[in-house]
This record gives sequence, structure tokens and C-alpha cells, in this order.
Amino acid sequence: MLNFEFRNPTKILFGKGQIANLPKEIPAGAKLLMLYGGGSIKQNGIYDQVKEALQGFTVLEFSGIPANPEYEVLLKALKVIKDEKIDFMLAVGGGSVIDGVKFLSSAALYEGDNPWDILSKKVVTKKGLPFGTVLTLPATGSEMNSGAVISRKETQEKFSMGGPGLFPQFSVLDPQVVASIPKRQLANGITDAFTHVLEQYMTYPAGAMLQDRIAESIMQTLIEVAPRVIKDPSDYEAAANFMWSCTMALNGLIQKGVPTDWAIHAMGHELTAMFGIDHARTLAIIAPSHYRYNFSGKKEKLAQYAERVWNVTAMSLEEQATAGIKMTEEFFHSLDIDTRLSEYTGSYEGTAQIISRRFTERGWNGLGERKALTPDDVEKIVEMSY
Amino acid sequence: MLNFEFRNPTKILFGKGQIANLPKEIPAGAKLLMLYGGGSIKQNGIYDQVKEALQGFTVLEFSGIPANPEYEVLLKALKVIKDEKIDFMLAVGGGSVIDGVKFLSSAALYEGDNPWDILSKKVVTKKGLPFGTVLTLPATGSEMNSGAVISRKETQEKFSMGGPGLFPQFSVLDPQVVASIPKRQLANGITDAFTHVLEQYMTYPAGAMLQDRIAESIMQTLIEVAPRVIKDPSDYEAAANFMWSCTMALNGLIQKGVPTDWAIHAMGHELTAMFGIDHARTLAIIAPSHYRYNFSGKKEKLAQYAERVWNVTAMSLEEQATAGIKMTEEFFHSLDIDTRLSEYTGSYEGTAQIISRRFTERGWNGLGERKALTPDDVEKIVEMSY
Repeated sequence: MLNFEFRNPTKILFGKGQIANLPKEIPAGAKLLMLYGGGSIKQNGIYDQVKEALQGFTVLEFSGIPANPEYEVLLKALKVIKDEKIDFMLAVGGGSVIDGVKFLSSAALYEGDNPWDILSKKVVTKKGLPFGTVLTLPATGSEMNSGAVISRKETQEKFSMGGPGLFPQFSVLDPQVVASIPKRQLANGITDAFTHVLEQYMTYPAGAMLQDRIAESIMQTLIEVAPRVIKDPSDYEAAANFMWSCTMALNGLIQKGVPTDWAIHAMGHELTAMFGIDHARTLAIIAPSHYRYNFSGKKEKLAQYAERVWNVTAMSLEEQATAGIKMTEEFFHSLDIDTRLSEYTGSYEGTAQIISRRFTERGWNGLGERKALTPDDVEKIVEMSY
Repeated sequence: MLNFEFRNPTKILFGKGQIANLPKEIPAGAKLLMLYGGGSIKQNGIYDQVKEALQGFTVLEFSGIPANPEYEVLLKALKVIKDEKIDFMLAVGGGSVIDGVKFLSSAALYEGDNPWDILSKKVVTKKGLPFGTVLTLPATGSEMNSGAVISRKETQEKFSMGGPGLFPQFSVLDPQVVASIPKRQLANGITDAFTHVLEQYMTYPAGAMLQDRIAESIMQTLIEVAPRVIKDPSDYEAAANFMWSCTMALNGLIQKGVPTDWAIHAMGHELTAMFGIDHARTLAIIAPSHYRYNFSGKKEKLAQYAERVWNVTAMSLEEQATAGIKMTEEFFHSLDIDTRLSEYTGSYEGTAQIISRRFTERGWNGLGERKALTPDDVEKIVEMSY
């Protein structure tokens, strides 16, 4: 087991009706900005529940934060925060809204001239404007971590940011929200969370026996609830386990004491930037090729995963590891998630070269758990994903 | 899954050499009180490492906190804290020292006349004097939770206390400390942590699929590392997984969203108070009888446990559940832990009646996950444990 530090101070309020408990989590007298996305919360009743709970608070609103939260839109919200002297934010949405609010939390207190520097210069945010969240779409885990990914259309870029100051003060997780999520987004959420676990697990054995088992627990639970959630998103038990699994998949716990990969995300982000493919689907496109290409370095964990998560046994290590990749692909297919780039776009030719060049231009640090992947490797992996 | 709230702000510093990082976790200029037990830390080098790390801080010391931290001893430490205007405490020890420091954290800021009221009147501590810990004995999980158990010899009583103000600010977990722990205490630690998981797991199915699997992960890991730790406590990988499993067993995570039992602890505490039997061993005495007596209400989870944790399958539910109890007993025996009261004391006759009467005298609220156990049930369970 590797040395690690772990601290996660976010308070979780989980279950039916927890939105009504918002007032006890927000400082009395705070001037609030409530931020949300395209307005689906007005259809599914969450907007009304939140407004009802916040009676007595001064609440301003900012809507229209898009999927892959867009820098230019966030700058408008930042102006509201500063002009109106907002002292607490409430993100009501999925990972995009929450990530956008994390950027705002950092930017509101940032002392530099240009908030873009937070992203381009990888500023670690130690203190942010406090915020809470009401999660409406289980997937990214952003509700219980301190990281965010922000996009800029203008330059087709996606940047990660974070820091210990960016944990939500609290997050409300009411699994009843799952009932109104479209099937496509449910499939995305399951795929996203599942791949989060894979990125922190599918490396090489590091003697972190407990972390391995907890990671496997999350994947087993996602596999078990996936068909139930897709079939009937109002199945509360399935929805609750889906929601809590997504949070646990990326709240820091399973990444501690182990090597982590994240190359799938790095390549996937480029596919979203280039083609607008849903984040989760880019992960499903890259993951199988990534594991096939890096088979020799990952085969022990692939085999362990095949055995413990998919009950594949009684084969050679290599056969078992190969079966692990196959089962992963089939799991994505069972969710109606395609796993080849050519199934999403006709104009995929040259993508591998473009992505590889972009990585090189940005300054190459190596990808993967060994930081050993080169731009040439990336080119080959993306090409295998066509 | 039941509704829940979860927040755990303790920062964990895990791994080799983490004691050297103490200074960055303690407020500059703080006047420190370092508290420890009987002095084993002077033999195993931990005392020297801590003192070395704390150079430059004003450090007072209070030693002699006994196993089952004793109220009268703690009052002496409380006097030092007040007289010397201590503003940060460092607990260096196992669960007893850390629990004692939690009582002091509460008592130092308590505004009532009599600190005993914190225990007898079940005061919930919202704010305590800040403290950190250096864990020297994996077992209780106290290093990452906000609860404590305090004893009073004079009255043969053990009381629980806690509150959100009693989380350690940080805990240093260096698995190298395991190397110098005597076999008897290692066996106790494994048994204690294992039973902590059982108390939060062995109830009735509540649709908390992820929590179940994480609980099973901790038990599987403890079972896997137990023989390695006992055989060679300097096996770092085994020690690290043992240590992290003990912490995860009682940091709040697996008790959220599920019913919990804790009747084994309630009865076990009485055995420690009456006979001075090690805490962990009292749990091993009570657990099998408790599960046999409450078989009908727990058989589904017992069977699930037998299958997933012990790989016992292809039997009827009842047979599988029975096998689960048997495997638990055998696991304790494999650690040289006896599971009958008569193996610890010759004067066990009448114990069941005494314990049952004590519960009645204190005001009976019901024990177990259904709060349905009566004093009469307790009498029978303890009798079955003779």
C-alpha cells in the first residue's frame, strides 16, 4: 500500500425528502445564489422543492450552465456573484453544474487578474466561496470531491482544477430524483461511475487489499443495479444504490494508497472536445482499447477483476484478463453504450493524430499509472478505438 | 436503504514515516499536551519519533492513561489542561488513549459543574478542544470517529459518549507500529474490528447493497491478513491492510443507511466491567450466542455473510446461516481467542442475572437493531455464552 493523505469533510444528506433539510445547512442570513442548468429541475419538481425549503433566505438565481460547463457562461455567473456580494452558492444539478460552481467558488476569491489562470496555470484552491449541492444526476461524484472539469468551446479545451477548498459544505442526495432522468443519461451515469472505479483500480497490484475490495464492491453494485435502474428508474432501492455508488466511486477513498491511471479520461476528454460526444461514452470508447494496448502491465488486475467482479475463473491469467476486458465491453453494450468511435461519427479519420499532437503541444508528462505512455502510444490507443 | 447523514472531517496521514509530518498539522504556536498510556511507546521508538517531530512546540506530557480509560485518571489530566491553558492535545496510543482524550476534549470546554454529567447525562459534544492522534494499536477505529467509551472502576460502569465536535483533527497511521505489538493485542485488534463490522452488518436486509459489500470487503480483508499479521507483524503489507481495515470498520461509513445492532458491545462491556476481560474477547464470547439466540431475525444476513465472506454455498438458507456463525467462532479460535465465558473465569455463575438486572436498573430502551431485546433475552444470551 502506498502512503496517502485522506480528508473529505463534505456532509452528505442522503434519502427521501432531504431537500427539506437545506435550511439547517446554510448559514443564517446568507445571501444565496442558486445555480442550475437547462431547466429540467423545473419539470421534475426539484426546483419547487428547493425554493420551498429556502423560504426566508435571500435567493438569486443563475440558470443555463451547460453540460461540460462552459467558461464563458461561468464568467457571467461570476459577475453576478461579485456584483451582488453573494456569500453562499447552491448548485442544483449534475456534475456539470456542480463543477461549474466549483470554478466559481475558486474564482470568487481568486486574487489574480485573470480567472482563466486558475485553469491554465493549475492553481490549487485552498479556500473557496462556500457552497452546497443538490444532486439531480448521479454520475460524476463531484458532489463529494474537490475537483472539477471546465470546458472552453473557443479553444476546444477541457481543463481539470481542484483543491482542498473546493469540497461542497454539504450535498443533498435524494434518490427519488433518479425517477425522472432519461434513459440515455442513466446509462451515461452508470458508465461514468464504473469507469471512475476502473481508473483507480485497473493498474498493477500494490498490496492495497482493502481498497481493491471496496473498488470491486462499487463495480459489483453498479452491475447489479444497472438493469433495474434502466428498466425502472423509480425503483427506489436500485436508485439509492446507484446514487451512493456514483458518489463513492470518486470521493477519494478508493484512490488512496494505490496507483491511479486516468489516461482514459485524458483521451476521452479530447473526444468530447472534438466531437461533442457525451463524456461517459468517450470513456466507453477508449477503455477497451486502452486495456488491450496496455495488457501486459495491467493483466494481473484485469484477471483479479474478471474473477471477483465477473466470476470468471478456471482459466490462465491471460485468458482471464482478456475476459475481463470483454465483460466490460459487454456491460457497456448492455446499457446501449457503443464502444467504437466510428459508431458516433463518420469523420473519425485522423483523430488519433490530432489528439496525440495536442498532448504534445501542451507539454507531455506521460500518461497512465506509470506515466510511461507516450504521444505515440496515445495515437495507437485512439486508433484502436475507431 | 435508510435515510442517513454522513460527515467525517478527520484527516488521515497513512504510511511509513508519517509521524514526521505532525508539525504541519498542528497550529503554529499551540501549547500542546501529549497524552499516552503505560509507556510502551518509549520502548518501541514512537515516543522518540513524536518528540523529534514536535521540536519547536511547547509540549507537556501526561502519561498513564489505562486500558478502558478511567474517569479518575482523566480528571487529573483535565486539571493539567485547565491549569496550563493547553490549546491542542495529541493522543499517542490505541483506542483507550484516544477515547480518553475525546473525553478531555469535551470536558475542557464543558460549561456544567460536573464533567461526569457528560457521561451520565449523555451530553452530545458539538465543540471540543482540538486534538490529533498518533495511532499505535489498530483496533477500535477511534482515530477516525467521534465516539468514546469511558470506564469508572468505582462504580463498575462503562459509558459511551460522543458528538460531532469529537472527531480528531488528524490521525497519523503508520503501519510500522504493528511490528512491536504483542500477539495477544493483535488478536484483540482483529477481533474488535471484525465485530465492529458485524454489529453494523448482521441485522436484516435493508437494500443497502453497497454498504453490505463494503462491510464484507472489510471482513474479507481482515480474514485474509489475520494469519499474516499474527505470524509476522513486521509484514508491512499485511499490517497496512489490517490497520486501514480497523479504521474503516468504524469510521461511520458502513453504518449509514442500514440498521445497526450493537447489543454485543452492550453485553460485552458488562463482562469487562465485571471481570476485567479484554474488550475484544468479551465480544467473541457474546457474538456466537447472540446470533444463535436471534437466529430467525438475522438468518438472511447470516446466510449472505456465509456465502460472500466464507464461500459457504449450496445449502439451505438455515444451514448456510448456521455455518456463518460456526465460521465466525472458528475465526476467533484461529486467533487464540476463546469464545466462552467459562474459559475466562470460574465465577461465571449468576453473571447473566447480574447483567440483566443492571440493564433494567439503568432504564431499559431495548437492545438490538429492532430495539426488541428484553432483559430476559439478555439473560438468556449471556447464559448461552457461559
